[in-house]
Amino acid sequence: MKALCLERGQIKIRTLPQPSPLRNEALIKVLKAGICNTDLELIKGYLGFEGILGHEFVGQVVEAANSKLAGKRVVGEINLGCGKCVYCRGGMKEHCASRQVLGILNKNGALAEYLTLPMDNLHILPSSISDVEAVFIEPLAASLEILEQIRIKRQDSVLVLGDGKMGLLIAQVLRSRTAEVSCVGKHKRKLEILKEKAVKTHLFGTRIGDKFDIVVEATGNEKGLEEALSLVKPRGTIILKSTFRGEEKVDVSKVVVDEIHLVGSRCGPFSRAIEVLSRKQIEVEKMVDGDFPLDRAKEAFAFAQKPETIKVLITP
Amino acid sequence: MKALCLERGQIKIRTLPQPSPLRNEALIKVLKAGICNTDLELIKGYLGFEGILGHEFVGQVVEAANSKLAGKRVVGEINLGCGKCVYCRGGMKEHCASRQVLGILNKNGALAEYLTLPMDNLHILPSSISDVEAVFIEPLAASLEILEQIRIKRQDSVLVLGDGKMGLLIAQVLRSRTAEVSCVGKHKRKLEILKEKAVKTHLFGTRIGDKFDIVVEATGNEKGLEEALSLVKPRGTIILKSTFRGEEKVDVSKVVVDEIHLVGSRCGPFSRAIEVLSRKQIEVEKMVDGDFPLDRAKEAFAFAQKPETIKVLITP
Repeated sequence: MKALCLERGQIKIRTLPQPSPLRNEALIKVLKAGICNTDLELIKGYLGFEGILGHEFVGQVVEAANSKLAGKRVVGEINLGCGKCVYCRGGMKEHCASRQVLGILNKNGALAEYLTLPMDNLHILPSSISDVEAVFIEPLAASLEILEQIRIKRQDSVLVLGDGKMGLLIAQVLRSRTAEVSCVGKHKRKLEILKEKAVKTHLFGTRIGDKFDIVVEATGNEKGLEEALSLVKPRGTIILKSTFRGEEKVDVSKVVVDEIHLVGSRCGPFSRAIEVLSRKQIEVEKMVDGDFPLDRAKEAFAFAQKPETIKVLITP
Repeated sequence: MKALCLERGQIKIRTLPQPSPLRNEALIKVLKAGICNTDLELIKGYLGFEGILGHEFVGQVVEAANSKLAGKRVVGEINLGCGKCVYCRGGMKEHCASRQVLGILNKNGALAEYLTLPMDNLHILPSSISDVEAVFIEPLAASLEILEQIRIKRQDSVLVLGDGKMGLLIAQVLRSRTAEVSCVGKHKRKLEILKEKAVKTHLFGTRIGDKFDIVVEATGNEKGLEEALSLVKPRGTIILKSTFRGEEKVDVSKVVVDEIHLVGSRCGPFSRAIEVLSRKQIEVEKMVDGDFPLDRAKEAFAFAQKPETIKVLITP
């Protein structure tokens, strides 16, 4: 099968043998996959991953011991736990110390014709969700994770930093909890998507008046936290969503003096994301800037790296 | 009156006029005061403070419009708010944007013969609390603030990083909530105080086996957060207590991937600290390494700066 591999910092189209599912796994034909900012960071060296990239996908089960899955259109949770540790037993396989992560950590990913995943990781999709929409389930679940971690009150003011895919999803998700949601971004076109959803928008560098109860850092770069600290109220909360290679300088005394809560936030509930998406409350299709065949994946990545691009899909 | 002033990074004994209380203030004769790590950071340039240092004290009211305070032995909350903003009205004057802070920010402090503070800031002491114990009320309140911010479950494991005054107070406070409290420090003599309180102790650099649900960073220096991140469980909580001059490099991606909660923590409830101290649950007197007259304050500061010193008091 054809696959897009990351090898020593370079992406290459390779012809590889079709993967063989383990006993607990299903073999899945990939219908459509997405390029995520994390993929771009992996190419820069984040986590030192080598292998087939990709963790956002929708596919069709072609082989599975569980007959209920056969032939079904599915999405898949990306963390594979050991099944035995305290985290796996507590339903938190995403924090298993010996986990694999699809296309991110010791597990080949979705930018290929086929992939394997444990059957327990799969969610069957309703027909109301298109393939394009389905590729957004993984990042939408990650956005919904914020609601699992902190309580957002109706009167809270929220600022989302960043108008990338995550910023646009998070702003829409949080808008369902409070009317006071703003987003700061660098691109008028991206912010336009949020204006239609009654989110207030600001271009980076313009003065924003008041400070916010909650600031979500989704810029994807190492300047975001400093910016968030300057915009959050005393006793406010900063949600950290960006993963990138490298360290960030932080004024820890400010965190102490203002008694700020910083909350790291990663993977979230797929079932909830499917539910939200099938209610058509979240705009995702307008974020898609291109859909490339796997053969042209290098071109797709070059396009995804442009600052003005929101989302690039790949159809194997 | 005599006072210890910080002037351009140097401490000096000065003779100054006795301060005049404002209408809402009391004039207080200082009976005893403490030197805090924050004072040492202020000398290094933290916050750019100039004036009379000192914010931990016990004193006697010599002049106050409120007759109930006249002649009483008191301790005082260190934050002076504007009284009008949303924080002041919400009982959080420590987060007022135009606040003064005793001996820290735009308000002369306690290392002097007299000080003034708003009458609302004062707490009358019961006779069961000695002057030496009373100097620990401010830092004990700051330790108790942690219990106001997060819920500590009986089964939670807690690690306190640092065996300075704050570390020793915090470990004892948290020991009242869970049996599993450990402290890592650099000094056998300091850790000995905690051993008697059934806190597990480790010397810095020795291997600590398991990770912890909650890690409190009270080292007072910029390496503490990195250490805390290496010792906290996924989805665990780090309490940040150190204030110092400068920035710290933080692996933000680790915070995100492990979904860590970081909580900045500062001033706390005085009334609760008085209650805890009068029940004699917290060992404080063993922390006192010296008690100097104000005339010898420079010597006292030199002694306080030695790594093996826990607490130095000054009696004007």
